[in-house]
Amino acid sequence: MFSKETYINRRNQLRKQFNTGVLVFLGNEESSMNYEDNTYRFRQDSTFLYYFGLNRAGLYAIMDIESGNDYIFGDDFTIDSIVWMGSQPTIKEMASSVGVEHSGAVNEFYQKVKSYPTDKVHYLPPYRPEHILKLMDALGFNKEEVKKKVSIPFIVAVGEQRNIKSEEEIKEIDYAVSVTAWMHQAAMRFARPGMTEAQVAAKVYEVALAEGGDISFPIIATINGQTLHNHYHGNTIKEGQLFLLDAGFETPMGYAGDMSSTFPVGKTFTNAQKEIYEIALRAHNAAIDMLKPGVNFRDVHLQAARIIFDGLKDMGFTKGDTDDAVANGAHALFFPCGTGHLMGLDVHDMENLGEQYVGYAGMPKSKQFGLKSLRLGRELKPGYVLTIEPGIYFIPELIDLWEQTGTNKEYINFDKVNQYRNFGGIRNEEDVLITPDGHKILGEPLAKSIEDVEEERKKAFLD
Amino acid sequence: MFSKETYINRRNQLRKQFNTGVLVFLGNEESSMNYEDNTYRFRQDSTFLYYFGLNRAGLYAIMDIESGNDYIFGDDFTIDSIVWMGSQPTIKEMASSVGVEHSGAVNEFYQKVKSYPTDKVHYLPPYRPEHILKLMDALGFNKEEVKKKVSIPFIVAVGEQRNIKSEEEIKEIDYAVSVTAWMHQAAMRFARPGMTEAQVAAKVYEVALAEGGDISFPIIATINGQTLHNHYHGNTIKEGQLFLLDAGFETPMGYAGDMSSTFPVGKTFTNAQKEIYEIALRAHNAAIDMLKPGVNFRDVHLQAARIIFDGLKDMGFTKGDTDDAVANGAHALFFPCGTGHLMGLDVHDMENLGEQYVGYAGMPKSKQFGLKSLRLGRELKPGYVLTIEPGIYFIPELIDLWEQTGTNKEYINFDKVNQYRNFGGIRNEEDVLITPDGHKILGEPLAKSIEDVEEERKKAFLD
Repeated sequence: MFSKETYINRRNQLRKQFNTGVLVFLGNEESSMNYEDNTYRFRQDSTFLYYFGLNRAGLYAIMDIESGNDYIFGDDFTIDSIVWMGSQPTIKEMASSVGVEHSGAVNEFYQKVKSYPTDKVHYLPPYRPEHILKLMDALGFNKEEVKKKVSIPFIVAVGEQRNIKSEEEIKEIDYAVSVTAWMHQAAMRFARPGMTEAQVAAKVYEVALAEGGDISFPIIATINGQTLHNHYHGNTIKEGQLFLLDAGFETPMGYAGDMSSTFPVGKTFTNAQKEIYEIALRAHNAAIDMLKPGVNFRDVHLQAARIIFDGLKDMGFTKGDTDDAVANGAHALFFPCGTGHLMGLDVHDMENLGEQYVGYAGMPKSKQFGLKSLRLGRELKPGYVLTIEPGIYFIPELIDLWEQTGTNKEYINFDKVNQYRNFGGIRNEEDVLITPDGHKILGEPLAKSIEDVEEERKKAFLD
Repeated sequence: MFSKETYINRRNQLRKQFNTGVLVFLGNEESSMNYEDNTYRFRQDSTFLYYFGLNRAGLYAIMDIESGNDYIFGDDFTIDSIVWMGSQPTIKEMASSVGVEHSGAVNEFYQKVKSYPTDKVHYLPPYRPEHILKLMDALGFNKEEVKKKVSIPFIVAVGEQRNIKSEEEIKEIDYAVSVTAWMHQAAMRFARPGMTEAQVAAKVYEVALAEGGDISFPIIATINGQTLHNHYHGNTIKEGQLFLLDAGFETPMGYAGDMSSTFPVGKTFTNAQKEIYEIALRAHNAAIDMLKPGVNFRDVHLQAARIIFDGLKDMGFTKGDTDDAVANGAHALFFPCGTGHLMGLDVHDMENLGEQYVGYAGMPKSKQFGLKSLRLGRELKPGYVLTIEPGIYFIPELIDLWEQTGTNKEYINFDKVNQYRNFGGIRNEEDVLITPDGHKILGEPLAKSIEDVEEERKKAFLD
């Protein structure tokens, strides 16, 4: 936890955005796996963590703008639960530790909310079913009303505030990214032909847990890197294949790191792998070079797309005018996702509040295949933290679909593409802070060039 | 997955328990951590797994008893999601793979349920908030009605059927227990003074993940074994302390193992630790020896309690007549929990259906402190799988409470107890099958005697 003053200051800054009304914050509950008391690890709501810092299930908070009073609600533990869980601070003690004077039991939260007219109550979009049930109870809404009546001013105020990372947050994220780099380094120094993907993922997870935190999102550890959100770890990995790892550390305070690396399952890359890896890395480095205040991230993305399209043109996969091709989304056959996203307490920061507000400042988002998956499309400001992760993927299902429908056929040499249909995917990913003058790559360095990656890979084969 | 016939046979056996009505099965959804798409690992509902075997989020099933028709509902993936997740079988193909002829989309599930009078619809107790919302939508009930109108006949039929494990289930559980033993062995051979609890827990987790499964419940890895459900892993472990590990493997099919072990952080136990360890182990072995069909597990528990009370009497912690003391619950100062619980697809098998029905066959459960935490109190039958895990704990908060209130003061020497108030806790735990003639301990053996544990510990200090 940060100091009491940090949370008081954050709440005061938020309070200034409102003249009237009541802000309601729902802390998260434990999440059950296969019966109520068998739970996943607890993850507190990030906005609750940001303004109240308390990492315990079953809490609620209210900021009453007019009275200036802040409240925390929760039920104290009984002696029975102390036997099972050890002694615990009271709700009053917890509230006081983050500078909140008023506290009460859960039923008092419901009484308090019901004491206001519903149109004065601001709340954020529910992303867990428990949030919907709680808001239905507190406000007397049905499920559809709960979803419809979220507060846009609350979303915008939280989004703008959390988007600018403070010095102490940057230090915490830098640590998250360093541990993330260690996780990737551990995989590079461990994976060998004949292992399963699960064995490599397990080693990566061990590093995160041993550090006292957890993973910031489900680990992608796969020889099928072309499947962007692939969580299957059942394959045995073989010489000649590429291994794509996308994994990040979450600090005990909840801040995320997020990196991707791609390395050969054997000791060295093949020539074809090297050629395509170099294109992806060129796009990656060019994107990072562009980062500074005032630049629209959409332009960073499109520049990465152009470099990828150009590189693939040199290899014969694509053809035609690069600017036209990218304007038509032809690069998205190989690069159907975005160049990066905001990162902070969430690995996709504030995705629960809506990309439209947080990543696009309310501006319209493209509906074009590829570009519609870009999560960040606004002007960068000092204090933003974001990922850079352009990639090149050969997705057989997508190749077939585009070929059958003739999509962007003036820009794609399908014969050549089909020769590489089982190539897989390549992505590097780093986390970057926007500084007043430019940018800074966060965390300790991880091998990224072909030479450095192959150097790390040697260590996996030492004994 | 088991064969198609296994699932067909299980459903047919269930169907025989009903003459009329409709059985509704809710598969689980993905569970969100900090925003909708950042999810915990998926855990399917165990009853859904048992009858339908499909391990994918967003499925629903119906068994219409009168027509004899079974249905599976879910939404097929779109081409967009195939790009992100790889190609996937259709709902129709999945249904067919487990012998279900009828399938449809999610909205058809709601239409189907609404086509029956609500009093013909049987459903099991909801344990996730998403279940409550779905049942509200499908049945037009409010939250309280959903909780009140669960089907006792459905609970009892599922409980009785799932309680008797088949040959193929026993094989799977035996494997789960073997991996569980490897997890414990890895910890014993790894932990050293100066490490954190988290480092040991991470090593244990790695073994589970590398095997391609996961953990069956949150790992307890602590020098504060007296706190029964302690998930804090932040302490640095020191020479002279006891380390208590309670952890289990979950196979990819969902079956659980669950073992506990207690070992010295240094190479050897102290004399005091040895004395108390021997008492706990004596109770453990005596409890296992009693296991056979026809024995009521409550008697096994009370026998373990008597051995613990007797052993502690020899050491001067307790006094008076053992039978009277145990009848009055005096042992519960040191042993406030149960000797074991049923285990299968859930580590506490079917805890979501209610212990009252599954573990007590509808018989009344004791309200006495200690005995009320016993999860199993019925006659054992061949095919039951259960844990044996008596323990001895010195819980400072509980000692103070009992001393202040004079609870069972005729049986407790509080002066002596207070000398050990920082001793910690000791527990061994194994998983046992009830056979027609007696019992069988499942899985590969794990060091349990003081000599064997100290032998394992030497390996942690080899280099």
